[in-house]
Amino acid sequence: MEHVTFPPLSRLAICGGTHGNEMSGVYMVREMQKQKEDLAGSVSIITVLSNPRSVEACKRYIDQDLNRCFTDALLSAPITDSSPFELRRAQELNNQLGPKGSEEAVDLLCDLHNTTSNMGMCLIFYSIDPVTLHIYKYIQSKMTTPVRAIQLSIPHSEAYSLESVGKRGFAVEVGPQPNSVVRADIFNMVKEAVDLTKEWLERFNSGVTFEGGEVEAYAPVKIVDYPRDPATNEITAAIHPQLQDSDFMLLQPGDPTFLSFSGETVKHEGEALYPFFVNECAYYEKKIAFHLGKKITLTFPSISVKKD
Amino acid sequence: MEHVTFPPLSRLAICGGTHGNEMSGVYMVREMQKQKEDLAGSVSIITVLSNPRSVEACKRYIDQDLNRCFTDALLSAPITDSSPFELRRAQELNNQLGPKGSEEAVDLLCDLHNTTSNMGMCLIFYSIDPVTLHIYKYIQSKMTTPVRAIQLSIPHSEAYSLESVGKRGFAVEVGPQPNSVVRADIFNMVKEAVDLTKEWLERFNSGVTFEGGEVEAYAPVKIVDYPRDPATNEITAAIHPQLQDSDFMLLQPGDPTFLSFSGETVKHEGEALYPFFVNECAYYEKKIAFHLGKKITLTFPSISVKKD
Repeated sequence: MEHVTFPPLSRLAICGGTHGNEMSGVYMVREMQKQKEDLAGSVSIITVLSNPRSVEACKRYIDQDLNRCFTDALLSAPITDSSPFELRRAQELNNQLGPKGSEEAVDLLCDLHNTTSNMGMCLIFYSIDPVTLHIYKYIQSKMTTPVRAIQLSIPHSEAYSLESVGKRGFAVEVGPQPNSVVRADIFNMVKEAVDLTKEWLERFNSGVTFEGGEVEAYAPVKIVDYPRDPATNEITAAIHPQLQDSDFMLLQPGDPTFLSFSGETVKHEGEALYPFFVNECAYYEKKIAFHLGKKITLTFPSISVKKD
Repeated sequence: MEHVTFPPLSRLAICGGTHGNEMSGVYMVREMQKQKEDLAGSVSIITVLSNPRSVEACKRYIDQDLNRCFTDALLSAPITDSSPFELRRAQELNNQLGPKGSEEAVDLLCDLHNTTSNMGMCLIFYSIDPVTLHIYKYIQSKMTTPVRAIQLSIPHSEAYSLESVGKRGFAVEVGPQPNSVVRADIFNMVKEAVDLTKEWLERFNSGVTFEGGEVEAYAPVKIVDYPRDPATNEITAAIHPQLQDSDFMLLQPGDPTFLSFSGETVKHEGEALYPFFVNECAYYEKKIAFHLGKKITLTFPSISVKKD
C-alpha cells in the first residue's frame, strides 16, 4: 500500500472575519489572540482577522467579496487609489500567509466561516492533498455531530478563496447561524474543529503514522436560482419547507424545491442530487438558492512525517 | 357581564419593511399589492412598505431605527435638510395612517416583523384595548403553533413604534429567521395571522358577538446585556446553549445564561422570569442579550359592532 512522507507541518494559520458578519471566526480568532495561543507543541499558529474593516462594520464586505479575490490574476493585479479595499487586503494577506503557490506559504490555512444554511460542520477544499483528507477524516472520527466536506474542482491559479493561499488549506463552514449573531453551539463546533486540527498536526509532527483510507465528500454539479419576476428581478418564492434545513439530504426528481408567495409548489426536475448552501443569506445577490452536488469518494495514502 | 360596542372597523393597515431586512413583511406586503388585496368584505386594506430605502438596501435602517420614531415628540419635531431619513419617513407614515391619536387614524394597524430569536408567533402591543385582545385570542385559537403576546406599559404619547399610529394596533413578531433571509414556514405563519385578522374584522363588522374572557401575555421587567470586556466593549460570551432558543421558558435562579468564549458559564441571579428576544441580532447594538418578563393575565369584555 502507498505511503507518503511530508516535511513537518510547522506553520498553521487560523483566519476569521474573512466575511465580517460571520461571527464564529471573529470571536474564535479574538479569543485565540487574547489567550496568546501562538504555539501548539511543534506548531506555530498565526491568527488573522482577515477583513477588519468589514468586521468593524459587521458586514460581509466593504467593496466586494474578499473571499473571491485570491485568484492568481487578482493577486497580481496592479493596485491604484481606486482599487476596492478587499483587493488591497487580499494582496496583504497573500504577502503575510503566502505567497500563494510558494515555498514560503503557511503549511496549512484554516478559514472560519458561517452559513445560514443547515450544513452543520462542513469543510470545503480544492485539493485532494493527503494531509487535508487525513485532517478531515480525523475531525469526522472525533466529533459527535456529522462532519461533511465539499471538494471544488478548480485549478489552483483560479482558486478564489483565502485557503488557497496556504500550501494546503480548507474553509470551515458551520451553520445554521444568522449573520451578525453568535451562537454558543456553533462557536463550540468551530472551536472543536480547530482544536482537533492542532492536535492532528502535533501528532503528525511527533512521528505518528496515519493509515490510508477513504472519505466521502460532495462535488458541486450545478446551482439553482430562486424563481424571479422577470420585470423586477425580485424573487417570487421561498425555499420549500420540505427542502429548507435539508442540506445534504438527497433531492429526488419531483421533490418540492420552492413555495411561491402565492402558494404554488415548484418541483425538482432532472437527476437526483444532494443540495447544500440551501437558503444561504449571502447568495441571494449571487442568484443562488442552493447548490446541487454528487457524492464522491476520495482515497488517501498512509502518511507520516519525513525524518531528517 | 360587561358588554362593549364599537363602530365598524373598516380601515386596516398592513405594514412591512419597517425594518428593511426583516423579509416576511416585505414579501407579504408586496404579494398583497400584487394580488390587489385592498378589500376583505367590509374592510378596506391599506398595504405599506414602511421603509422602502432600507428595504432596497436590505438593512434594518438607513440613519436610525424607524420603529423608534413614532413618539409624539418625534412626530412633531421640525424637519430640516439634516433630519435623519427615518424621522421624515415616520412623519409621512403618520400623515398617511394616522395622525396618531386622531379620529382619522386607521382602525387597526398591523406591522409585520421578524426576529432571530425563537419566539414563534408573537404579538406585541401597548394597549389593552378589547379589539386587540379579541384578535389575539382569535389568532391563538385558530393557529396550531403557540401564539404569545407581549404587552408594553408605555404611555401613548411615548409609544415609539409604528403600530401606535393606528387607533389600535399590534406588531406581529415572528421567528426564528435570519435577517435578509425569507423562510417559507415563517412567511406562512405571518400570512395566517394576517388572514385571521382580516377574517375577525369581517365577522365583527357583520354583527357577530365575541364573548368576553381572558388571555395570558408577558410584561417586560428588565433587560440583560452580554458580558463585555470593559476595555474594548466587545462581548466576551454568547447566550448559553441551554437558554438559546428557549424564549418564554421560565428562567430560574441558577440557570445558565451565558457561556464565555473561554468556556465559563454565567448563571441567572434574582427572581424567576420569562426570557424573550433571546439573541436577537439587532439588539447587540442596543446592548440587550435578552429581555426578562413576567406572565400576566388580561381580561376583556364581550364585544360587538355598534348598530346605527
